[in-house]
Formats: sequence, structure tokens, C-alpha cells
Amino acid sequence: MPKVSVRGTEMPASPIRRLVPLANAAAEKGIKVYRLNIGQPDVPTPQAAFEALKNIDRKVLEYSPSDGLLSLRKKLLEYYKRFNIDVDLDDIIVTTGGSEAVLFAFMACLDPGDEIIVPEPAYANYMAFAISAGAKIVTIPSSIDNGFELPPVEDFEKLITPKTKGILICNPNNPTGYLYTMKEMLQIRDLVKKYDLFLFSDEVYRKFCYTGAPYISAFHLPGVEEQVVLIDSVSKRYNECGIRIGALITKHKELKKNIMKFCQARLSPPLLGQLVAEASIDTPAEYMLETYNEYVERRKFLIDQLNKIPGCYSPIPMGAFYTLVRLPVDDADKFCRWCLEEFSYDGATIFMAPASGFYTTPGMGQNEVRMAYVLNKEELGKAIKVLQEALKAYPGRVI
Amino acid sequence: MPKVSVRGTEMPASPIRRLVPLANAAAEKGIKVYRLNIGQPDVPTPQAAFEALKNIDRKVLEYSPSDGLLSLRKKLLEYYKRFNIDVDLDDIIVTTGGSEAVLFAFMACLDPGDEIIVPEPAYANYMAFAISAGAKIVTIPSSIDNGFELPPVEDFEKLITPKTKGILICNPNNPTGYLYTMKEMLQIRDLVKKYDLFLFSDEVYRKFCYTGAPYISAFHLPGVEEQVVLIDSVSKRYNECGIRIGALITKHKELKKNIMKFCQARLSPPLLGQLVAEASIDTPAEYMLETYNEYVERRKFLIDQLNKIPGCYSPIPMGAFYTLVRLPVDDADKFCRWCLEEFSYDGATIFMAPASGFYTTPGMGQNEVRMAYVLNKEELGKAIKVLQEALKAYPGRVI
Repeated sequence: MPKVSVRGTEMPASPIRRLVPLANAAAEKGIKVYRLNIGQPDVPTPQAAFEALKNIDRKVLEYSPSDGLLSLRKKLLEYYKRFNIDVDLDDIIVTTGGSEAVLFAFMACLDPGDEIIVPEPAYANYMAFAISAGAKIVTIPSSIDNGFELPPVEDFEKLITPKTKGILICNPNNPTGYLYTMKEMLQIRDLVKKYDLFLFSDEVYRKFCYTGAPYISAFHLPGVEEQVVLIDSVSKRYNECGIRIGALITKHKELKKNIMKFCQARLSPPLLGQLVAEASIDTPAEYMLETYNEYVERRKFLIDQLNKIPGCYSPIPMGAFYTLVRLPVDDADKFCRWCLEEFSYDGATIFMAPASGFYTTPGMGQNEVRMAYVLNKEELGKAIKVLQEALKAYPGRVI
Repeated sequence: MPKVSVRGTEMPASPIRRLVPLANAAAEKGIKVYRLNIGQPDVPTPQAAFEALKNIDRKVLEYSPSDGLLSLRKKLLEYYKRFNIDVDLDDIIVTTGGSEAVLFAFMACLDPGDEIIVPEPAYANYMAFAISAGAKIVTIPSSIDNGFELPPVEDFEKLITPKTKGILICNPNNPTGYLYTMKEMLQIRDLVKKYDLFLFSDEVYRKFCYTGAPYISAFHLPGVEEQVVLIDSVSKRYNECGIRIGALITKHKELKKNIMKFCQARLSPPLLGQLVAEASIDTPAEYMLETYNEYVERRKFLIDQLNKIPGCYSPIPMGAFYTLVRLPVDDADKFCRWCLEEFSYDGATIFMAPASGFYTTPGMGQNEVRMAYVLNKEELGKAIKVLQEALKAYPGRVI
């Protein structure tokens, strides 16, 4: 039998999705599973999205342009203007989710062996896309003890080699919920400017900032406009993860030309998702505010409850809808499996993402999990209760 | 400014899509453009597809499983049974179009430097996906003079090296419309068996066979079931190219495991497209037959008309809805551009795909174009008239 690729074999399985079969098996046994493993919120998708589908007046569900429907790109342009993200229509390319934007950014910027520096813990799929491109993610540890703030500039500089092509940040951060300060953003700006690097900036959680300060986009940083590769997605902000519509934004003309080749090879982003995304951008402010307030409450509730559990610690996330939690366990990977395979309390169990998958440094995150506050407070409360009981019963508990 | 990747810079632009801006510019000048460049038919999408969208009863447009909705996979299984393609539910992975199936197949089977052998002319985007994976497509020329039949087995064997990991066929073929015979399919089978290769089989035009003989899938070939990687798509058969739903089918367990990692990294295929695809599989036989008959007529009409033009030659395509045509011109690339930029007849012009982009051997296909018979007979007739006049006026005409 022919051998599969080394690339695929060495690729780590998704820490968010690889335990899904265990969760499904538990559910099939009649156990209620509180799924905090993935950023799939329960908040309804805006009505405008469904209206757009009901009102489709087409005879053929045809290919769209490779860079996306012009009407959607125009809407996105308006949307970015609201955030003072000063880009042109030609700088915006519609992609199949933020995922494809990351993949194409790596494919078009990085050659095999090239390196990018990413603070860890980091969204695990960056690693998968880097492996796809033959590139290397060099991680720079941030720590739960100082709330996952940006590591010191000197730590970045120590890692820069002739192979370094860029720095990647996710802001607000998945999985930590950290939100970079203006001071930190300017430090990053200075680094990419000094070393002539790309700044890959994943801003899909832009809507979810809980500090009251105005949002800082990589495009707000003066002097590096052509170095920024912005990754965006409508998935989280309108809770329509399934439609797979994202965007890649760049002012680097040569890069745009390169990326368009990858876009043309896959023909076009999904048409139906584009129609939904376009309609969603007009979602009334009330919906957006209501959702926002809902997350603010959930965040407070979840973090307060977690920090009351003996041996648990979560910093206060300032953005997104995740938090990284330290648990009093020997091995969070084992603990997450154990919760799904062997434990239930009052007919229910909890599904969390082991944090080790968000680190590349061996041993890091071993007693940490990522939790997504994507369920309502009542369900979150029950999930926390299950966690509390699970920690009492778990044989690998560490005091 | 940071440098873009060599990979992206060296990637050829899509021969199907790179002239689109010229076509759009002509259209903006008020010229009617007959678009035969791309496999985007004018045939209506089945009503069931639109019904599925109108009847969506969900509150959240959420992620689907990484391998696709179970209900869609079950429908696909039923569908394959109709073609005696004997696979299991677990062998079927839903992808974002056939495009993603090709990309993931390459990523999961091939490492940088690995080679696959592909008869040329070939669908140009295979090259793009191979470049993405760092793999090399080694082409083996087939010729318009013998209707693009399979090159001799010895020609394949001459190209096999320790780096060779697979053979790729597209059957019915894009861009030639060729349909491999049972004899040829068995030759391919013997090759992949003898050299322990993957057989990548792109069968997205399965519905479009015009010989009356039963369709031959790679999965019908005994003894290589675990070596077959079938690429499929609903785009062409239900004329819903825009929904971006395809499938990858493999019985190779290790490969399935590898491919799932790439699937999980991009989270899920488009939800809305999956709902549409699922509904489309139940399209009544009348619709399918009507479409089929329409293509049979268009094919006859187009090929007859083309072969009447002095200096033009097209073999009779036995499948798909493309044909590769030899034209009496110095350079088909120049001619296609010239048609869009400098020529019109009775307010109209024609958009064809230069065939050079479907070959990797330099100089091949220089006087050939691919035409897709995706317009109705009346429009095709007008397009042919434009072509006829263009050939008379074109300064680079070769007798």
C-alpha cells in the first residue's frame, strides 16, 4: 500500500476537535455534554442572514469571482471604515473562512523552511497551516502568571534569524482572551519595521473587547501598512461559523497578486455564505449590543465561578470568548478525556480543550485547559458544577 | 518591504481565470462576451436546491462536522451505490468543492519533492495544488491527433522514479472531454498496482458521458481499492458550482486519518452548501435527463460547427462539457487576448481559455484553446460566428 505523507503524519491532530468522537460517544450513552471545547456559541444568527437565504432570486448557484462578490467587498469596506481601518476595495479578498485566509497568507508569504514567530499559547490551527506550507512556527512563551501579556521585545529579537519572515498575533487572543495594549502593539510595530517582517494579524474577535478602550487594529499602526496581513472572518461576530466566510486584507501589491493565484486555483469562496455575510453586516446595533452584553455577563460569571474552585485559576480575559484556566490536575489532556470517558455528574459531563495543543514547547500548558463561554449562564453554571465534582473525583488530582 | 514567497511567484496564473479582467473590461465597453472559458453552465440549478434554502429551520448557522454532515454523507453513499461504487460511510469526507479534495489529497499523500504523473493537457489547477504541497507534477503528453487517448504504458513507466507517489486521471476529462476505455482503465490499474502508487481519480464529470457504455469509476478496478483517492463534486452535476461542495473518498485508513487532520484544521465545509447538496441528490430523473440531452445536442452542434471552420479541428469529446480545439493561429494565448481586447463582431466577442495553461511541456497547446459548451445552442451559434470572423481578421492567422 502506498505510504501517506510525512507532513500529514507528523501534523498534530486538532486539540479542539480530536476529542469530538469521545464527546459524541458520551452523548450517545445519554450523557449531557457541556461543550466548551469550541468557539461555537449558542447565540442566534441575525435574522437578516436567514432573510437573505429566503430571498435568493437566482436561477443558477454559480461561481462567484475568486476574490469574492463585489457587493460583499464593498460592504466590508464600509464596515472597516467604522473601525478606522483605512483600506481600499482592492485590498480586500474574500476567503473561505478565516482559516483559508491564514493558509493563503502562509502559502503566499512563506517558502519551505521560512519561520514566523508567534506568542504561545496560540490557536492550534496556525501550526497546521504552517505545516501545510512547509513553514515553521517559532513560539515565544507567554505565561498565565502575568495574564498572557506580550513577551518582552528582547525575547522576540533573540528568535529572529535570516529565515524569519513574520510575526503573527491574534488580537483579541484565542485561546487566552488577552487583548494587546497600545504599548504592546507599538512594540510589535517597531519589531516588524526594524526587521522588515510581515505582521499577520488575526482580528476575528474584534467585536469582543471588554475594556471600553477603542479597538486597535494592526492597520492602525503607522509606518507598517504594507507589511500587515489582516485575517478576518464574519463567523464569530454574527455567529455564523458554518457559512465559512472570511477575508484577507493586504496593501502589499505583490502579495495580493500572489494570493490571487491561490484564490483562482480554488475558483471561488462559497456563494451562499457570501450572500449571508453581506446581509449580516447590516445587522442592527441592538443585536450587536445584546450579544456583547451577553458575553460580558457570561465572562464575569464564568471567571468568578472558576476562581472560587480550589486550585483553579483563570486570569480575566479582556476579549474574545475564551479563557485559559489552570486546573489542579496532573495532566489536562488525561483529565479532559477522563471527563468524557469515565465521569458524569447528575447525568452530565464537560468537554474542554486541553491547552497543551496550543503550545509547541513540550510540557507547557500541561495543567491548563481552554474554555469557550459559548453557552448561556444557566448551562455554564451547570458545567462549572460538573467541573467542580469532576475535580473532586479525578484520581490524578494535584493539590 | 518583506518579500513574498517564491512558491507563489512561480505559480502560473489560472489559464481559465487570468483573462477575466480583459473580459470584464470588454463587457464594460458594452461588448457582449460569450464566456466559453469556464465550466459555468447556464442550465438552471434544480428547484430542490432553492427549496432547501427556503426551508432552513435553524437558529444558528453553526459549524458542521469536519468530515461533513452525516445526513449528506449518507445521501452520497446511496448515490455512489447507484454507480456500483462500493464504499462505506466512513470512506466519504465532504470537502469545500472538488478543489479542496485535490489539495488535501496532495497534502496528505505527497511530501515536498514527491512526484505524480498526469497525462496532459490537464486541469490547470492540479498544478497549483501540487505547487502548494511542494510536489511535482510530471506530465505525459497526449495528443489531439489521436483524440487525447491514454499515452502508452511504456511512456508512463519511463517516468516512474523512486519519487513517484501516484498517477492522476480526470475521467471524463477536463479539458479534453476524453473518456477512458475499460482497456485504458485496466492499464492504469496495472501500473498503480505494479508500482504501489496512489491513483487520484477526478470523477466530477461522471454524469456527462456520451457513449452509452456504463460509467467506469476507479473504484471499479479490482485489486487497487485501497490505492484509489476519488475526487468528486456536486458542482457540475447539479449546476451549483458556487456552493463549493465536493468529496474525497478513500479506503486507505492511514490516509483517511491524515486527511482528517487537514479537515479539522479548516474546521468544516460550508454548511449551507451541504444543505443544498443533500437536497440536490434527490433531483428527479427528468431534470437529469433533460440536462444530459441538452449537453448532447450542444456537443453535436458545437463540434460540427467548429470542424466546418477552415483550419479548425476538434475531436469529438465523449464526456464532460469541454473540448480542446486546434485553431489556425500563431499563438492561442495572443489570439484569446486579442479577441477580448481588440476584436468584436456585431457588438460581441468570445472568451476562450488558451490551452497552453493546461500543458507543462513548453510549446505544447500553442495553437489550441479549451471551449466549454455551457451556453445554449443559440448563443453557441453566435459565439461560433464571432470566432469565424475573428479568425478572418486576426493578424496572426496561420493557414
